Amino acid sequence: MTSRNISRFWEWGRKIICVGRNYADHAKELKNAVPTEPVIFLKPPSSYVTEGSPILIPAYTSDLHHEVELGVVIGKGGTSIPQCEAMDHVAGYALCLDMTARDVQDQCKSQGLPWTLAKAFNTSCPVSAFIPKERVPDPGHVTLWLKVNEHVKQSGCTSQMIFSIPFIISYISDFISLEEGDLILTGTPKGVSAVQEHDELQAGIEGLITMSFRVDRAQ
Amino acid sequence: MTSRNISRFWEWGRKIICVGRNYADHAKELKNAVPTEPVIFLKPPSSYVTEGSPILIPAYTSDLHHEVELGVVIGKGGTSIPQCEAMDHVAGYALCLDMTARDVQDQCKSQGLPWTLAKAFNTSCPVSAFIPKERVPDPGHVTLWLKVNEHVKQSGCTSQMIFSIPFIISYISDFISLEEGDLILTGTPKGVSAVQEHDELQAGIEGLITMSFRVDRAQ
Ligand SMILES: [Mg+2]
Ligand SMILES: [Mg+2]
Ligand SMILES: [Mg+2]
Repeated sequence: MTSRNISRFWEWGRKIICVGRNYADHAKELKNAVPTEPVIFLKPPSSYVTEGSPILIPAYTSDLHHEVELGVVIGKGGTSIPQCEAMDHVAGYALCLDMTARDVQDQCKSQGLPWTLAKAFNTSCPVSAFIPKERVPDPGHVTLWLKVNEHVKQSGCTSQMIFSIPFIISYISDFISLEEGDLILTGTPKGVSAVQEHDELQAGIEGLITMSFRVDRAQ
Repeated sequence: MTSRNISRFWEWGRKIICVGRNYADHAKELKNAVPTEPVIFLKPPSSYVTEGSPILIPAYTSDLHHEVELGVVIGKGGTSIPQCEAMDHVAGYALCLDMTARDVQDQCKSQGLPWTLAKAFNTSCPVSAFIPKERVPDPGHVTLWLKVNEHVKQSGCTSQMIFSIPFIISYISDFISLEEGDLILTGTPKGVSAVQEHDELQAGIEGLITMSFRVDRAQ
C-alpha cells in the first residue's frame, strides 16, 4: 500500500457511520422521541462529494433535505475503544452534509425497511476540506451553520449533542471496528429543509471553515 | 496505489451491498410480503471475516441467524449500468453468509429504525475464497447449501431469486455507483435459523466451493 493521505480520506476511507437524532431540537422537529441510545446508520464511500461537484437530487425523491453535521475523521483504528481513549483515535474533522430523501425515509420508517435509498445515494455525503485535530481544541463547543441561497436555515452548537463524540466513538467501536480514514457524522441541529435544483448551499463551522455546493438533478 | 488483487477483495473493497427478501420462500418464512422492488441494505467492510477466524455473536443478541448467499464481486465500476451490460462488471463470486441478529432486526423494523445493529456488526459477513467468473458459467443456476453441526439447514437454487443478478446490478448502480472490489449479497433461500456458541457452520456452492466457520461469543 502506498502512503495514504488523511487529508484526502474520502478517496480511500472505507466507511461512513452516521448518528441520527443526536440533537434534541432536531429529533423534536421530526416528531421523533429523543433517543436513549444512538441511532446508527451507514453511507457507502461512493456517497462522498467534494466542492466543485454538485449535490444530485435522486429522481425518486421530491423532498431532499440538508442536514449539516460535524464529521469526525478516524486516524487510528480500534475495537471496543474506551471513552477515555476515544479522542486519541481522532485525526481531525470535516464539515459534512447528511443529505436525506425525507419522503423516502418516512416510507422506510413506516414499512420497517432499511434507510439505504433515503441516505446512501450518490452525493449524499458532501464534505469540506479536512481540518486537523489541532485546529479544533474543543469539538464539543463549535457552531455549525447552513444557508440556502443566502438564507440561514440551520445554526447550532455541538454542545447541544445528546451523545458526545467520545461516547459515540466508544459506542460504535463496540460492534463495528473503526479503521483509519473512517468518517463519523455526529447528527444535525434543527432547521432541516428541502432543497431544489439550482439552490446554492453554504455551510460552515464558525471561525474554522466554510464550503459551498450547488444542487442539481441526477441525469 | 499499488496493484490490488481482486481475489482478496475483502482487504480493500469499499462496500458490501445486500439484497433482502430475494427468495419468495424466505420472505414467507419471515412473514414478509414478496417485494416488488429489491430491499437494499449495507454492511461495512469491517464486517468481513474469512475462514480460520470465528463468527462472533454480539453480546446484544440472543437470536443470531445464518443466511447463506451468493456474493457477486464487482470487477469494473459503473453508474446506471444497463442490465444487458451488467455481467461485464462482474469479476467473480464468493460464497457469503449474511449473519443477522434477528431479534434486533425485528425491533428495528417495528420501531422504523435502520438495520445497522442487526446486520453490520463485526464478523457479520463471512466470505469464502474468491471464485473467478469463468468457473461459474450460469450464476442463475447454482445450488447453495448450509449445514449447522452437520445438519442441513438451507439448500436452494439461485434460479429461485426474485430479482436476477443483472437486474440487481443495474438497480443498485442507478443510485449507488459500483466500484471495483465491491461485493453484492444476493439474498438467502429459506431455512434460516439461530446459531449458538461452539456451532460449526459449513456452507457450499454445489460443485464449486465449500467453507466452514466456528461460532464464538464476542469477548
Ligand atoms: Mg443526519
Ligand atoms: Mg458501507
Ligand atoms: Mg440476507
